[in-house]
Amino acid sequence: MKIFACQLNPTVGDLKGNAAKIAAAYARGVNFGADVVIFPEMMLTGYLPGDLLFSEDFLVALDIEVNKLVRDTTEDTALILSVPHRVGRHTTHATTGLVDKPPTFNSALFCAGGKVLSIHGKEHLFNYSVADEKRVFAPYRGHAPQLWKGVSIGIPICRDVWYSDVSDKLKAAGAEILLSPNGSPYFSGKHESRVQIMQNRVAETGCPALYLNLVGGQDDYIFDGCSFALSTDETKPTAQFAAWEEEEQLLVLEHGHLKGAHTPLPKNKWEDISHAMVMGLKDYCHKNGFTKATLGLSGGVDSALVAALAAEALGAENVTGLLMPSDYSSSHSVDDANALAKNLGIHTHTLPIQALKGAFDTTWEGTFSEKPSGLTEQNLQARLRGSLVMAFTNANASTLALTTGNKSEVAVGYCTLYGDMNGGYNPIKDLYKTEVFELCAWINRDKEIIPHNILSKAPSAELAPDQKDSDSLPDYNVLDAVLKLAIEQNIWSAETIAKQTGANTQVVKDILRLIRINEYKRYQAAPGPKLSKIAFGVDRRYPLTNKFSL
Amino acid sequence: MKIFACQLNPTVGDLKGNAAKIAAAYARGVNFGADVVIFPEMMLTGYLPGDLLFSEDFLVALDIEVNKLVRDTTEDTALILSVPHRVGRHTTHATTGLVDKPPTFNSALFCAGGKVLSIHGKEHLFNYSVADEKRVFAPYRGHAPQLWKGVSIGIPICRDVWYSDVSDKLKAAGAEILLSPNGSPYFSGKHESRVQIMQNRVAETGCPALYLNLVGGQDDYIFDGCSFALSTDETKPTAQFAAWEEEEQLLVLEHGHLKGAHTPLPKNKWEDISHAMVMGLKDYCHKNGFTKATLGLSGGVDSALVAALAAEALGAENVTGLLMPSDYSSSHSVDDANALAKNLGIHTHTLPIQALKGAFDTTWEGTFSEKPSGLTEQNLQARLRGSLVMAFTNANASTLALTTGNKSEVAVGYCTLYGDMNGGYNPIKDLYKTEVFELCAWINRDKEIIPHNILSKAPSAELAPDQKDSDSLPDYNVLDAVLKLAIEQNIWSAETIAKQTGANTQVVKDILRLIRINEYKRYQAAPGPKLSKIAFGVDRRYPLTNKFSL
Repeated sequence: MKIFACQLNPTVGDLKGNAAKIAAAYARGVNFGADVVIFPEMMLTGYLPGDLLFSEDFLVALDIEVNKLVRDTTEDTALILSVPHRVGRHTTHATTGLVDKPPTFNSALFCAGGKVLSIHGKEHLFNYSVADEKRVFAPYRGHAPQLWKGVSIGIPICRDVWYSDVSDKLKAAGAEILLSPNGSPYFSGKHESRVQIMQNRVAETGCPALYLNLVGGQDDYIFDGCSFALSTDETKPTAQFAAWEEEEQLLVLEHGHLKGAHTPLPKNKWEDISHAMVMGLKDYCHKNGFTKATLGLSGGVDSALVAALAAEALGAENVTGLLMPSDYSSSHSVDDANALAKNLGIHTHTLPIQALKGAFDTTWEGTFSEKPSGLTEQNLQARLRGSLVMAFTNANASTLALTTGNKSEVAVGYCTLYGDMNGGYNPIKDLYKTEVFELCAWINRDKEIIPHNILSKAPSAELAPDQKDSDSLPDYNVLDAVLKLAIEQNIWSAETIAKQTGANTQVVKDILRLIRINEYKRYQAAPGPKLSKIAFGVDRRYPLTNKFSL
Repeated sequence: MKIFACQLNPTVGDLKGNAAKIAAAYARGVNFGADVVIFPEMMLTGYLPGDLLFSEDFLVALDIEVNKLVRDTTEDTALILSVPHRVGRHTTHATTGLVDKPPTFNSALFCAGGKVLSIHGKEHLFNYSVADEKRVFAPYRGHAPQLWKGVSIGIPICRDVWYSDVSDKLKAAGAEILLSPNGSPYFSGKHESRVQIMQNRVAETGCPALYLNLVGGQDDYIFDGCSFALSTDETKPTAQFAAWEEEEQLLVLEHGHLKGAHTPLPKNKWEDISHAMVMGLKDYCHKNGFTKATLGLSGGVDSALVAALAAEALGAENVTGLLMPSDYSSSHSVDDANALAKNLGIHTHTLPIQALKGAFDTTWEGTFSEKPSGLTEQNLQARLRGSLVMAFTNANASTLALTTGNKSEVAVGYCTLYGDMNGGYNPIKDLYKTEVFELCAWINRDKEIIPHNILSKAPSAELAPDQKDSDSLPDYNVLDAVLKLAIEQNIWSAETIAKQTGANTQVVKDILRLIRINEYKRYQAAPGPKLSKIAFGVDRRYPLTNKFSL
């Protein structure tokens, strides 16, 4: 049996575009003489479609595309198509107004000869991290394999392979192979977990298996692809698809052995993460109609990293850095920013903010008889710069503003809302400051792309004379160690964290307080790619109004 | 039997503060000789606590407060305490890293004599609209009543009274009365639905019933209280608690009849909604440490309404309006804003933006050889004003910036991100423009509070010469009719909407497109009180990247 497995990149809501991609890949499969063509989870709608599934118009439009794809299947080549499948329609209770959701399932349709031969569904819904599947789907329980050309095919969808029950049921009903469509959002290191759980399923059932994942960026999360096949007689994958690229493979099932090609995966964590960030940014831009990006270049490490990623994602010629020095800017900041821009080949413009700040001081003083000072003056500078960045995007069509706050500073609120937080996308939203440095070092592995001086100088916001981050924050090694426990393990005991990190208890208490009271800044922050197990945003849902502290 | 029912306002995460409130109310119940003291849903944690429930530290701290409250119960007065109740602890799978959530239930503990006598739980979890209970809770199924002083008490929690099954089970197990703790977020008209579904439960079971709701604001939603009791021999409530205020009542159950006092409810929709908005704003401020508010006063109707609400919520002396005229501002705008401020008794400052805009023009021209024009110039003015508003909050402690975008303009993106969208809270986030006018008319019912001229002039952003909203947008009556179908019923067919509203199909198409492409602005918008069935924000989860159109 030949299985044509298509690791593709859909766009959420683009039913016609996604259907065209599916039809073209299916046609290639037919040409290759494939017996089965399979796509990742929710390939036709894109994943996750969220409340779009509450729209009757969306579901009707979806049915039209499904029907066309099913109609065009041949007798010889089956299509396994993952889509939401609804049984019945919404009913609204006449007096209470309560709406009964029709049972909509996260499904896979097994189609051939112009017909749907069987419907498969997901039982263990993805309802943690970034996903709310229980909001829109009902759990499916009628698991049964499909016999096709003498082979009994089980189709466990996504999280149904993370538990043994569904595969066990399929095996008990005769399944000889497991083909699993997935939409598994990336975090660093997740691929190893996926291989491991699939190895468990293969060992338990004695069935070879395909794990077929989506690839591409969608708002706050990204899919890494990395699809793979396993057989019972080998412990390592017998086929490996690319990370961060579309790839189609014609897998062959012979004598119970499933095999295909091996595309090399990224060599290390930082290569992997840099690809993740580039794909996240590229897809956010291209799927939303942006071809160019702009950002403030401060001469610091965060904006340097974002500029480097943007140049890779969009092409250096499509990236513009704005230098916006003030009286507090060091001369090396401007030099460093220019050196970076030269290394990358990106455009720059220089817009000094002294005159703006002077006009602001005069306006303010005229009403309040004093100039803005302290935090007011610091935030003001960030907001004037943020307004310049946005003006540049307004004046230049198809240009996205990028914001450059790392996870450490956003965690403790060391950033200005409506200032440096301005922007439609934040490529480094889920990188701690220490990780920003690690990634920069990796980018510089062969030659100096990010100028050495940017990496070696002490971090500074340069919003006050001789300011350093270390005036307000603990050392980033300490800060990040504390943040990881607080954010990724929800530990709120300063004593526990102090014990585990060696940090001073009062320092930890201050950090925990800063995390809590800055939830409002993160509520209004730009999206950015999830890279870790718990990213800020839809992945971590803390109330704004929250007085919990120990 | 005497039941002391406490409609109270907790703060999310404030375990000690909420516990003190519970203890004090319980003590009052004991003094009144109550047989039972009952509180609304999740009174001890506040509602909804979100991912706080993933924190072991939070759950341990919760247990401590629960144990103290239970320990202090007397033999004579039972305490019905709604809290998350966990069975077991988190387990993390050693190799996959998968975390098994312990079964945590949304529970009510029936306590007396220092002990928990029984545990009750919620089966139908609140997992739509603003809530994600299936993310944190498991459904409870062991429903059974508690016998207390000869009366069998059923305790169906919140959504368990919206279906008949749980009450039926309790009745079958002998329940003679239903006491239901609730955390039911407000939307206009919801109270009537609640009474109706409870009447159904009372009719089905023959049991009198108490519907006890939370009161108070929490981020994006508010609880209206409006608790009530029903008996089998009367169709109308036999007790009615206040809307928008804490209230405790000693209800008496005699011969199967449950009765209490009747506190008048708001007389009409607009009185109700204005109370909702005032409570939402007041609680957001006070629970987050703000005593004062500021906002830009444009002389338009949106900022006028927000100023009026803020004056009522925080006291006029704590509200400051900033007048920030430009060359495009009409003289009547300044006059109207001043007349409003005088009517309300709020502070004002005038900060003209000409000088700032001039400095911006010079800075821009120096680099790009032309002044900002068109949309760039329009957005710039909004961003300069937004920066002034934020500077004022930075310079004045405990001051919250209010933003004033109505639901109509935010729906179609007729607002500037990082400009007039600046602010920590938006009191009119969920009011369409036509509703803004209706509410203003109600506020002016006895005397002119919002100057007549503000209500009668044509809406204008005044960001360009002689600009009117109607230059860019259809008439607000048309726009709002279209928006209601698109947003509240997820209708994406321009033809369907055109047919239902009488609007031009192309106009509808343009509006639908604007809704879709402005999702990114709403993603970064401030929170504000949910007033309708579907509000923007956590209540409506559309992807940013979304190419769906018909």
